[in-house]
Amino acid sequence: MARAISEERVSRLKEEFFQGFIKTCGINLVSLEHGRAESRLEITGAHSQQDDFAHAGVMATMADHTAGYAAFSVVTEDYRILTLEFKINFLRPATGDGLVCRARVVKEGKNILVADSEVFSQRNGVEKLVAKALVTLVAVPEQEFSNR
Amino acid sequence: MARAISEERVSRLKEEFFQGFIKTCGINLVSLEHGRAESRLEITGAHSQQDDFAHAGVMATMADHTAGYAAFSVVTEDYRILTLEFKINFLRPATGDGLVCRARVVKEGKNILVADSEVFSQRNGVEKLVAKALVTLVAVPEQEFSNR
Amino acid sequence: MARAISEERVSRLKEEFFQGFIKTCGINLVSLEHGRAESRLEITGAHSQQDDFAHAGVMATMADHTAGYAAFSVVTEDYRILTLEFKINFLRPATGDGLVCRARVVKEGKNILVADSEVFSQRNGVEKLVAKALVTLVAVPEQEFSNR
Amino acid sequence: MARAISEERVSRLKEEFFQGFIKTCGINLVSLEHGRAESRLEITGAHSQQDDFAHAGVMATMADHTAGYAAFSVVTEDYRILTLEFKINFLRPATGDGLVCRARVVKEGKNILVADSEVFSQRNGVEKLVAKALVTLVAVPEQEFSNR
Repeated sequence: MARAISEERVSRLKEEFFQGFIKTCGINLVSLEHGRAESRLEITGAHSQQDDFAHAGVMATMADHTAGYAAFSVVTEDYRILTLEFKINFLRPATGDGLVCRARVVKEGKNILVADSEVFSQRNGVEKLVAKALVTLVAVPEQEFSNR
Repeated sequence: MARAISEERVSRLKEEFFQGFIKTCGINLVSLEHGRAESRLEITGAHSQQDDFAHAGVMATMADHTAGYAAFSVVTEDYRILTLEFKINFLRPATGDGLVCRARVVKEGKNILVADSEVFSQRNGVEKLVAKALVTLVAVPEQEFSNR
Repeated sequence: MARAISEERVSRLKEEFFQGFIKTCGINLVSLEHGRAESRLEITGAHSQQDDFAHAGVMATMADHTAGYAAFSVVTEDYRILTLEFKINFLRPATGDGLVCRARVVKEGKNILVADSEVFSQRNGVEKLVAKALVTLVAVPEQEFSNR
Repeated sequence: MARAISEERVSRLKEEFFQGFIKTCGINLVSLEHGRAESRLEITGAHSQQDDFAHAGVMATMADHTAGYAAFSVVTEDYRILTLEFKINFLRPATGDGLVCRARVVKEGKNILVADSEVFSQRNGVEKLVAKALVTLVAVPEQEFSNR
């Protein structure tokens, strides 16, 4: 179960994690091990919705992307990960200094992976669960992928 | 069913739509009528994921937020809308010039509303369905809301 | 798009539809064409929950199984269909004489299919939408399947 | 957190649990405490689908109903519980002697509750996680309920 993932692979995935929309959102990968990933963002005005809470879309993006990298951590380098679908419940308004997301793979199938993602708000070091998601992902061989 | 919504209310909701995270994402409200909303964004590098498609989080944010304003269109001004949860399926990689989202309320309950959101990619005027969501929302009296 | 499905295949699928748990529930396949299926059940005391509505589980079972046969209708005979996941919203309490479910495939991927299922209650010929689901399915080659 | 629930209330809920569709399915409530419920069924031919696994609808029904009673355990007697929606992932084909479902409330809101349900297959005393669900429920005052 607790198969190791090489430091080199972790470094590469951390770099790949933070680009495009995720850079726009300011979400950083904090840690990555086999089947588990944790990410964090500092809440700013760029993340708010009409009532000054962090937007549901920010939490959904964290839940999805962090699940994706938890999935990347269990497949070999010649596979790409795509999200098939996810479902997310918003449990309380998200306010505070930051958001942290913890995702873990709950099922490693041959091609299909399922991950559980939880998003917590942080204020003065106190965490509260603000959202909970279930994410279905597919591992696609890189070769097939580039031929699309 | 096709109750009118005042032009003044539409203007105010359009303004309120585009702020915080939605401004960060560049999503604009295109049209709003009773129970229906349409939004659009121009795809840029700020929206991509690791394989240069528009990020699942962008589509999820559009699906959620557009559903939220479709819900705002059917409640009176003294109610706020919050998303309880949503589920979204990604049907094909999203590439092209822009994304358009169309949401409609499929159930108007006393407090609970359910909306269906579809996201389409646009390239040279051709649209393709790229994501489909079901969103559950709650209407909260503004008074209760500010006392939280 | 509107590829035909042979009468022989329809007959075989109709027979296969009604067995095991579906027979226990009394759900019949009413019609099947390429990418679309319709099923029906007579509501009896065997379907109720604690408040005398039809149980959410009955509607979920119809939504899932009918989506599954809509999916069977678009793959060749050497493929089996399995449900990966689904999400269902219950829009109003289900009462009446019967329930009818209409499912249609909204995305036919190489292996992954997505279907939309709607469940209606029927009372004196009047239909009401009582539940709406999104279902993700996978087509597995029969050969792989029997080797499991 | 670990508020007690009276033995009398547990007895009444256990009785109420097993009726209608749940009796048809043969699902028994095994245990109930504040915010947690466990149920079980013996797998028979009455639960199968076309490939002799337990039907997804059986697992969905268990996940929903067990979550419902976990929710009943945290509200007072003058409230009824209804499922607004749920999402369920099927992780592996369900075979074996029995199915057990464990549900726990992850968020107790004023009216809205969210529960996590896991379904395990049992064979010769060995359990395997076969399905995982997130369920959104609403607590409705009994008085309002009977006036519907």
